Amino acid sequence: MEIEHYVINETHRIQTQQLDVYPRFLFGPGPSNAHPRILQAMSMRMVGHLDPQFLALMDEIQELLRYAWQTDNRFTIPVSGTGSAAMEASLANLIEPGDKILVGVNGYFGNRMVDMAERYGAEVHQLRCPWGEVFSLEEIRQGLEKYRPAILGLVHAETSTGACQPFDGIGDLCRQYDCLLLADTVTSLGGVPLLLDAWKIDVAYSGSQKCLNCPPGIAPLTLGDRALAKLKKRKSKVANWYLDMTMLMNYWGENRTYHHTAPINMNYGLREALRIVAEEGLEARWKRHQTIAQSLWDGLAEMDLACHVAREYRLPSLTTVVIPEGVDDKAVRQRLLKEFNIEIAGGLGELSGKVWRVGLMGFNSRSASVALLLSALKIAIAGAGK
Amino acid sequence: MEIEHYVINETHRIQTQQLDVYPRFLFGPGPSNAHPRILQAMSMRMVGHLDPQFLALMDEIQELLRYAWQTDNRFTIPVSGTGSAAMEASLANLIEPGDKILVGVNGYFGNRMVDMAERYGAEVHQLRCPWGEVFSLEEIRQGLEKYRPAILGLVHAETSTGACQPFDGIGDLCRQYDCLLLADTVTSLGGVPLLLDAWKIDVAYSGSQKCLNCPPGIAPLTLGDRALAKLKKRKSKVANWYLDMTMLMNYWGENRTYHHTAPINMNYGLREALRIVAEEGLEARWKRHQTIAQSLWDGLAEMDLACHVAREYRLPSLTTVVIPEGVDDKAVRQRLLKEFNIEIAGGLGELSGKVWRVGLMGFNSRSASVALLLSALKIAIAGAGK
Repeated sequence: MEIEHYVINETHRIQTQQLDVYPRFLFGPGPSNAHPRILQAMSMRMVGHLDPQFLALMDEIQELLRYAWQTDNRFTIPVSGTGSAAMEASLANLIEPGDKILVGVNGYFGNRMVDMAERYGAEVHQLRCPWGEVFSLEEIRQGLEKYRPAILGLVHAETSTGACQPFDGIGDLCRQYDCLLLADTVTSLGGVPLLLDAWKIDVAYSGSQKCLNCPPGIAPLTLGDRALAKLKKRKSKVANWYLDMTMLMNYWGENRTYHHTAPINMNYGLREALRIVAEEGLEARWKRHQTIAQSLWDGLAEMDLACHVAREYRLPSLTTVVIPEGVDDKAVRQRLLKEFNIEIAGGLGELSGKVWRVGLMGFNSRSASVALLLSALKIAIAGAGK
Repeated sequence: MEIEHYVINETHRIQTQQLDVYPRFLFGPGPSNAHPRILQAMSMRMVGHLDPQFLALMDEIQELLRYAWQTDNRFTIPVSGTGSAAMEASLANLIEPGDKILVGVNGYFGNRMVDMAERYGAEVHQLRCPWGEVFSLEEIRQGLEKYRPAILGLVHAETSTGACQPFDGIGDLCRQYDCLLLADTVTSLGGVPLLLDAWKIDVAYSGSQKCLNCPPGIAPLTLGDRALAKLKKRKSKVANWYLDMTMLMNYWGENRTYHHTAPINMNYGLREALRIVAEEGLEARWKRHQTIAQSLWDGLAEMDLACHVAREYRLPSLTTVVIPEGVDDKAVRQRLLKEFNIEIAGGLGELSGKVWRVGLMGFNSRSASVALLLSALKIAIAGAGK
C-alpha cells in the first residue's frame, strides 16, 4: 500500500518540552547521583557491539570489575539490565529444578531472592532474623547442616535495612558442606570492604547506581570456578534466554559470538565508573565511605536520632534512621524534596513508616553531603510534628 | 576488621585511557548511529526512579510510544533491557506451560522466538519458509487451522533477511481462531509503516537502537486488551521475575509501586528519540526511509549487485545484498571498516557468507549515507576478489 493511504492516528502525538530536570541530591538508597565524568562518557558516539573498539572496551571493563570486586574470576561481566536482572541471572543459571537453596532473609532483598529462586523451581529454605540484624556463623552452620543446600544466598549489604552481613568463615563452611556461596553486593561494591576471593564467594552480583555512581541499566555479575562447574553440568537449558550465561560467555569470551546487542553507552558509563574506582583505590574509597558515614552518625546522634542497625553491623553506604515518634514520615521526605531537592527514602516492607533510608554513596560520600543533609533534616523534622 | 588490615590485590588495577572511539558510520543491522540530541538527553543529570519528575517523563514516553506504534494500548512501556529482553517479556508473560504457540520462522529471529517459547514450556509449532520470503495469508490460515495455537508469533521486519511480513488480514484471522497475534517490530518501529491497532496486533515489542537511533538498553513493549486478559487469567506466576509484567504494571500504572530501578538515562534517551519521531511525523518518516532505500537499491542495481529479497517484500530499513561470486565477504567488510569507518554486517544463520546486511535507519536514512556507502562499497569490492 502507498504510504499516503495509511490513516495516521494523531491522538498520541503530544507536544513535549526539551528534557530538563531539577538537580536533586540523591541521598536515598539509590540511584545515587551520577558522576559527571560518567555522564560525559555515556554521551560518547556509538560503535557497534562487535566493533574491535568495543571488544577492547569489554576487556577493560572485565578487568576493572575484577579489581573492584577483588576477584580473579575470568567470568566477570556486566549484565544488560539493572541489579535485579543480575540477581536473577545468578539464580537462573545456577538453579536447576529441585535444587535446594538456603536464603538468608533479613530484609527486602532476601525476600526477592526467595521469590526468584522459587520461579526457577528450587526447593527454597529460609534462614530468618529480624530486619536490621545479621546472621551469626553458627546460625549459618546450623542451616547448612539442616538443609544441605546446593546454594547459600546471602545479602552482603541489605539496602532495605542498612545491615552489613559479615562473611568471615562462611566461605569455608560452604566448601565443607559442598554448597555454593552467592552474595548480593548491590550496595557494597565500590564503597564497602568486599573481597570476593578471600571470602570464597562463588557468585556475586551488583548494581551500577549505588557506590559506583553510574546510572542504572547495567549490572555486574561474576561466577567463580565452582559456580561455572555447576553451570556446565546442567541437564536442562537455563530457563531464561536473555540471561543465559552459557550463551553469553561466548560473547564475553574469545569467540565473541553475538547473543544480544550489548547496551553500548551503559558500558561506556560503567567503564568510566570503574576507572574512577581504580584511580582512587579501594582502600581509600572504603575509608572515605567509613569516615563520612561516621560523621553522619555523629550528627544524627547530636539530633537525638537513632540508627536502626547496631554500630557493629552498620553499612557505611546506607543508614536507616529511626523516625522519631510523633514525626510524619512522608511530610519530612516531601519537604526535603520540595524545599531542598534532597531525595531520601522511606522504609520498605516491615520497616515501612519506621525508618528513613539515607545513602551516601560513591562521590556523594563527602562532607558537604553530610552538612547539607543534617541541616535540612533538622528543619524538616521541626516542621513535621504529627 | 580495620580497613588497613585488608590485603588488596592490585593485579587487575589496570591503567586505562579516557574513553574515545573513532566515529563510525553504523550502516549495519543495528545499532544505528545515535542521534546527537539523544546522546545529549542521556547525559542529563539523574533523578530517582520514583521522583515526580521521572513519573511525568514516564507518562510522556508511554504516550509517544503509542503514537510511534499507532496504538491506544494503555499498557505500552519500555522494558529495562535490549530488544531481546522485550521479546522474552512478551513470551514469558503470555505463555503458560502447555500453551500452544505457532511461530513463523523465516529468519534468525523467528528461531530465537522458538527457543525462548520452549524455555517457557510452550508446545511450539513452526511455520517455515525460505529466509528472505514471507508467509501468505493462506499459509497462515492453514497453520492456525492445523495447530489451533493460543499465540501466533510473526516477525514483521526480519533483521536477518530484510523481509517485511505483510499483516493484512492476519489480525482478523487470529480473532476468528481465538489466537493472540504477537509481532516483532524491532527493525520497523519508527521507519516502516506499522499500525498496531489497525492491524489488530495484540502484542508487540521493539528495540531502541534501530530506526529510533537511541542506544541499545531499553526496549518498547505493548500489550493490548486481549493479551492483558490472558495475562490476568494466568494460573502460575510469570516464570521470569525481572520481566514479570503483572508486577511492572504497578510501577507503570497509577500505584507507582517499586519493582526494579528503571534505567533513568536510557529513558531520557528513548523519550528524546520518540520526540524526534513525533516532530517529523510518521508519514514523513516512512516516506523518507522508502525514498532513501529506493536510491540505495537503484545504486546497487547500477553496480550489478542483487538484493536477496523480492522488491515487494523488501524492508526499507534493512537491505540484504547478495555477495557476488568470487568476492571475499570478510575482506570487503574489513576494508569498509578500516578504510572508511563504515560498519555493515555479514549474514546470519543460513545466509551467513551469502549476503551483506545494510541498514539505513532513522537519521542514518539520508542521501549522504547512500552516496558514501555506494562509493566505498565499489572500492572495497573491486579490491576484494578472492
